[in-house]
Amino acid sequence: MPNWLLPEYIQDMLPEEAWRVERMRAQFLELMRGHGYQLVAPPLLEYAESLLLDDSRDVDLRTFKLVDQLSGRTLALRADITPQVARIDAHLLNRQGVARLCYAGSVLHTQPVGLTRTRELLQIGAELYGHSGLESDLEIQRLMLQALALLGVDNVHLDLGHVGVFRALVNHAGLDRELENELFAALQGKDTAALQALVQPLDAALRDALLALPSLYGECAEVLARARRQLPDYPEVRAALDALQTAAADLQPLVSRVGIDLADLRGYHYHSGMVFAAYHAGSHDAIALGGRYDELGKSFGRVRAATGFSMDLRQLYSLLPRQTACLGICAPLLDDAALSDKIAQLRAAGEAVVVDLLGDKALRTELQCDRELVLRDGVWQVAAL
Amino acid sequence: MPNWLLPEYIQDMLPEEAWRVERMRAQFLELMRGHGYQLVAPPLLEYAESLLLDDSRDVDLRTFKLVDQLSGRTLALRADITPQVARIDAHLLNRQGVARLCYAGSVLHTQPVGLTRTRELLQIGAELYGHSGLESDLEIQRLMLQALALLGVDNVHLDLGHVGVFRALVNHAGLDRELENELFAALQGKDTAALQALVQPLDAALRDALLALPSLYGECAEVLARARRQLPDYPEVRAALDALQTAAADLQPLVSRVGIDLADLRGYHYHSGMVFAAYHAGSHDAIALGGRYDELGKSFGRVRAATGFSMDLRQLYSLLPRQTACLGICAPLLDDAALSDKIAQLRAAGEAVVVDLLGDKALRTELQCDRELVLRDGVWQVAAL
Repeated sequence: MPNWLLPEYIQDMLPEEAWRVERMRAQFLELMRGHGYQLVAPPLLEYAESLLLDDSRDVDLRTFKLVDQLSGRTLALRADITPQVARIDAHLLNRQGVARLCYAGSVLHTQPVGLTRTRELLQIGAELYGHSGLESDLEIQRLMLQALALLGVDNVHLDLGHVGVFRALVNHAGLDRELENELFAALQGKDTAALQALVQPLDAALRDALLALPSLYGECAEVLARARRQLPDYPEVRAALDALQTAAADLQPLVSRVGIDLADLRGYHYHSGMVFAAYHAGSHDAIALGGRYDELGKSFGRVRAATGFSMDLRQLYSLLPRQTACLGICAPLLDDAALSDKIAQLRAAGEAVVVDLLGDKALRTELQCDRELVLRDGVWQVAAL
Repeated sequence: MPNWLLPEYIQDMLPEEAWRVERMRAQFLELMRGHGYQLVAPPLLEYAESLLLDDSRDVDLRTFKLVDQLSGRTLALRADITPQVARIDAHLLNRQGVARLCYAGSVLHTQPVGLTRTRELLQIGAELYGHSGLESDLEIQRLMLQALALLGVDNVHLDLGHVGVFRALVNHAGLDRELENELFAALQGKDTAALQALVQPLDAALRDALLALPSLYGECAEVLARARRQLPDYPEVRAALDALQTAAADLQPLVSRVGIDLADLRGYHYHSGMVFAAYHAGSHDAIALGGRYDELGKSFGRVRAATGFSMDLRQLYSLLPRQTACLGICAPLLDDAALSDKIAQLRAAGEAVVVDLLGDKALRTELQCDRELVLRDGVWQVAAL
């Protein structure tokens, strides 16, 4: 097999994509800086147990592992940056109040994720620690949507969910952990038959509520009205539905459509409150994900209120219309002080000036220039090519 | 062992370092864009044989390997980006003329490198393919020095070498590969005893030349004059010394000192012409390295003239004086349209505006602000904190 072949679902970023993604990264980080988010850059490799926190077989399977020659211990290549940022908040920054953090870095998966079919993602995201109220959910949700708009992704559809609803039903029913997990799996897999069998022993109100969950998705006002009728009026359920209603009203102006999905239990073991996902017609999978995860810090010995979002810049790039590359100015290879000055001026003004080392006209198109420097009336001038 | 501990020689970048390094990365890539260098971003993981090209046991040992669950083959985490860029030039871009490429990305080593004691580097660099003359060596060398100056590293000392000198001696002596490797090892290790034993069977002129090499380093003019006296006047040796003389004169204005080191055979198996290294008083190891490596493309089936440089942004950051972090403007959490407008204006002007979600004065220093938004005479204004 020739050695220039790449592994399956691993790709180079060639110039057009690489520059565009680099610009998007810079735009995102600048947006975050303006909102007081501090950049952190955790390492690509950590001890496996620091990255595999929640006993999720899923995360375990999609995480590359290798042996540390120095310690003999198992290292893992991060498949997600959020747990690392939670570690930094819990153990390095030691804030008593709010910490706002953002990041941009590569993550690797053993198996391709979703339909984008890639194993190397460029994850960007933000996390807000130390505040448990709706204001921080809204700040994070608005920032995610602002970032998508800034990066050129429009016609975004936002789905809001709340793992607190299912959790409240499970707690009130006093279910054991095993039954809870089975119910969770049935709901997550939209497996109605299994769900019906599992809820059989429960009392009528809870049974009806759990059976109603899979159909509680769609247009905001309608779903919320239905949820208030079909779900028991527990304080936690009411609080969750109120929060969803406020968030939906707040975020509506920023997107083309807001929906509610109470059956979305993505990251149930990890999330603890409102969850959200952004969708776009160009992608089968969500293009940005987030939610509240007050429990994660516990793994690092410090429970902290937390909410955040993340997205893959390479996936976002794939949704954007292609742009024509910016072209440069071709300059001859000459030892001429006036030419050097002119080139330096043009570069200082943001132009790309490409010295034609070979001076071979037949190969000049390879330099990707649409203009050239020519000497006219004793002055170096930019002329169209 | 607590799960917030990182592996040895693996570090987080916390906010101050992370922002500064991010800015340096952007400055570097902008410099490269202005000179017509196109950005590429090869993957972190490739098949091991694509990254381990030159049978170097050194590179092999410092490269992390893991098993690809999809193919069952061995993957490697890149320990260097240059071979990947050579692959892209040889196989994806297919230019007949000059290709200028640049990159910025993480590389990992199984063992800490040099005295910086780190296993995760942020490698930046540039490569110029398709031109074998001195002009491209000079373009790359100048760019490396310009980049160092732009990034704030001053008092740089540049060492120039040329592997063509040792190669010419070896070729003229008609040495076999084994003896060549032993000589190389003795020179590289400055092992004079071994060197003397190895050159014993050679004719006097070659013996004296090889014995002279380890002392041919120091101030440019003096070393070149000595080299012309002590080395045989082969055309390749003369060409190498002439090239060094021209380059030294050209680069002198850009650095505090240019030296020559003809015993520097770093990357001999990889390099083929002029090599160079930049040093700084703050670092025991070189802070930037480069050279001509016309042979590398052969591994990908296409020999191309090539020269380039690379450096580690995190190492450069460690040389810079610490800067005081930029502080933001603290804003109260209020549902007030005039306040929102003022915040948006300030952010658009590049300010970081941090909403104080908790409103707890005792925790306000954690928000890292030196100013605040206050309502005075009915108008939101920025005031010192």
